[in-house]
Amino acid sequence: MSQKSRLETALLKPIKHNIISIIDKKRRGGTHTEKEIRFLVETMVSGETADYQVSAWLMATCIQGLNLEETTWLTRAFVDSGEVLDLSSIEGVIVDKHSTGGVGDKATLVLVPLLAVSGVHVVKLSGRGLGFTGGTIDKLEAIPNFHVALSNEEILAQMKSIGAAISSQTTDLAPADGKMYALRDVTATVDSIPLIAASVVSKKIATGAQAIVLDIKVGRGAFMKTREDAQALAKTCRKVGQQLGRSISTVISSMDQPLGYSIGHTLEVIEALETLKGEGPGDLRELCLKLGSVLLVSAGISPNLEKAEAQLATHLDDGTAYKKFQELVSAQGGDLEALEDTSLMPQPERIRIFPASKSGYVKTLDSLKIAQAAKLLGAGRTTKETPIDLGVGVILRKKIGDFVEAGEALVELFVGKKHDEEAFEQLKEAILLSDTPVTPPPLVDEVSLSATNF
Amino acid sequence: MSQKSRLETALLKPIKHNIISIIDKKRRGGTHTEKEIRFLVETMVSGETADYQVSAWLMATCIQGLNLEETTWLTRAFVDSGEVLDLSSIEGVIVDKHSTGGVGDKATLVLVPLLAVSGVHVVKLSGRGLGFTGGTIDKLEAIPNFHVALSNEEILAQMKSIGAAISSQTTDLAPADGKMYALRDVTATVDSIPLIAASVVSKKIATGAQAIVLDIKVGRGAFMKTREDAQALAKTCRKVGQQLGRSISTVISSMDQPLGYSIGHTLEVIEALETLKGEGPGDLRELCLKLGSVLLVSAGISPNLEKAEAQLATHLDDGTAYKKFQELVSAQGGDLEALEDTSLMPQPERIRIFPASKSGYVKTLDSLKIAQAAKLLGAGRTTKETPIDLGVGVILRKKIGDFVEAGEALVELFVGKKHDEEAFEQLKEAILLSDTPVTPPPLVDEVSLSATNF
Repeated sequence: MSQKSRLETALLKPIKHNIISIIDKKRRGGTHTEKEIRFLVETMVSGETADYQVSAWLMATCIQGLNLEETTWLTRAFVDSGEVLDLSSIEGVIVDKHSTGGVGDKATLVLVPLLAVSGVHVVKLSGRGLGFTGGTIDKLEAIPNFHVALSNEEILAQMKSIGAAISSQTTDLAPADGKMYALRDVTATVDSIPLIAASVVSKKIATGAQAIVLDIKVGRGAFMKTREDAQALAKTCRKVGQQLGRSISTVISSMDQPLGYSIGHTLEVIEALETLKGEGPGDLRELCLKLGSVLLVSAGISPNLEKAEAQLATHLDDGTAYKKFQELVSAQGGDLEALEDTSLMPQPERIRIFPASKSGYVKTLDSLKIAQAAKLLGAGRTTKETPIDLGVGVILRKKIGDFVEAGEALVELFVGKKHDEEAFEQLKEAILLSDTPVTPPPLVDEVSLSATNF
Repeated sequence: MSQKSRLETALLKPIKHNIISIIDKKRRGGTHTEKEIRFLVETMVSGETADYQVSAWLMATCIQGLNLEETTWLTRAFVDSGEVLDLSSIEGVIVDKHSTGGVGDKATLVLVPLLAVSGVHVVKLSGRGLGFTGGTIDKLEAIPNFHVALSNEEILAQMKSIGAAISSQTTDLAPADGKMYALRDVTATVDSIPLIAASVVSKKIATGAQAIVLDIKVGRGAFMKTREDAQALAKTCRKVGQQLGRSISTVISSMDQPLGYSIGHTLEVIEALETLKGEGPGDLRELCLKLGSVLLVSAGISPNLEKAEAQLATHLDDGTAYKKFQELVSAQGGDLEALEDTSLMPQPERIRIFPASKSGYVKTLDSLKIAQAAKLLGAGRTTKETPIDLGVGVILRKKIGDFVEAGEALVELFVGKKHDEEAFEQLKEAILLSDTPVTPPPLVDEVSLSATNF
């Protein structure tokens, strides 16, 4: 093609002109109209606008930004691209929780039953993990016969009967977001605050919940590398929620080290069960209480965060939450005895110790590298089709700030059919020790509550 | 896909990691290494890097820029993606000319024979026009039996026998540029000075000429809208040429109105023939003398531009250049009698006058809209496959600054099978008249000479 094309473009392409001028506008830092954003999203879904045009727009957007109005319009266009779960027949407040993604994060398994015994209904549509140990849905499959794919009717029925449901996404929620996300993932356009906000909020709105809490992870191995970015994302999500009539609260929590001690499917379910019984790791319990209390206040169930936390803690300690989890497992067909006898869940073939090379204080527990070690053992997917080994994973024996003797176990590797050598090597890079005491990072950085008007 | 993907991307995609990090680097305003640029271009050609990744990089590049080194590496990678015409067996200096694209620009038809009688060899590989009346190759097909597709061997033989050849691109020159250009065209990433420079210069280098002149059009209907942009593009092209060992000179010329009076294939050939006989429009002659003199000085044939211009003017006025054009037509199989009896070339069915609606001075002759009018008459392509009508087009009876009486002909429409109504309407928008005298814009704005070291 010749360089004459500026003229030619104008002459040749009346049909494509619209999308090219939309891309061009953002390239030059312009502000879109709602119509332009809707046109972009709708023609992307219909295929009229090509992937390479969407990705050019995405890059322009990452560099030039989107203002709050544009972000809201993008969010709404995502929501409108698919179905919205109709939960209007359910009485009471329906809440939902979302995390921007963390290693060892099994908070959903604890929160769903815990909230369901605290005066709200909980709907949780989760994804499968891709790449590292992750998806709540995958974790639940460690419970034999647990049925993860509920129909919309089953979700509704279960929420009416026991107040809670966890399911994979059977409905096509915000498919435009899914399509755009797949492109962002391979074009270096993932970490844009407005794009992340539109993606997160659109899914939550499509799920139908009235009060939503977002757990925004910050630090090593998280989407948001800095506190400022996490705060900006939190603020954008809250404001977009406000514009679209949903109460979105945010909690900023640290991903400087994995949450809890366990990474891997069976291992994480076990840790969640312990937490549901009032035991389990302190950080996991703390996070669940924070996220849960935000939702209870936001939903108008509790007058303030302290009272809400106290109420939730009681439900963990007195076994109520655990009992609700049993109901949930039972409702979704899972084997209840596996909760009592966890050896009925998928198991590793053997356990290998990763010892400390010297004595010292744990300084670094690189979440990303630890996740990678678990993946190398078979706990993560390489492609969507890769089978995962639910029985493998790692248990951290120490967290940041803990003292370890030379030769003492730092990590236990739960090894399956895959070789463990690479995972073992990976852990060497993941963990750094210090000769001097280390102060562990605080878990919860900031809580921003949005009230719901019912 | 879930929002967990920052982690996942790092874990999942070792193969794609490289291209994503390259895109990411430019997104954040980083400077590429030669290796990165070569990787991008090579994997784009091989298909490993997807179109949507290339377009994301293109957008990042449009916004963040490329420095001279990066632009040079990109140019070299384009050249290396295909063949380079081997003209080493030809004695003497080989020159080439390129225009960034103008309406009514038939300078190549004049310059090739004119230069060939002035001490240099001329190789001109041209494209076909897409969209508006344009390609030199299409214009030459107005001469019955003119053979436009020469093999490399035929080009070489003809340059040895008569010192000049004009051919369509039979060899795959800089195919990576072609591929990237096609994407730029539909992603609002056309007007980036480094990208245009790499595109233009790579094609010229692949053609094998030693001294090159670029005619950079500026103004209404041109790639470069402002003098500053045109100067920046000219400078970048000259410097990239220098880096790659080729002498690239630049001329900045106005595209505020079409060049000459004729737009359309037969019409433009006729105007070129007139110019080759020492007649023809003053602006076309002036531009040919400027571009030609730059090449003669650059090639070391003439000591300065004045002497070179005088020499070239003589060759137009004494019929030498016209005689060489006859040789060229004859060598490429064209009917010589059509040059004398131009009614043997494709003709319109009728001529319609576009009259002035009032008396006044021509103030605006919008090149783009006039080109569009010619296209509506059938002189331009809508797609690559559209047949064009070589006999149709328009002749401007007035240029900017000329006075016209109410009802007097402003334009003649050479109409073929297509309806002329739309074209007629288009001309109403293209031409504005003023009650007060208008000074015509100067044609040549700036000449920057690069010397060749032979």
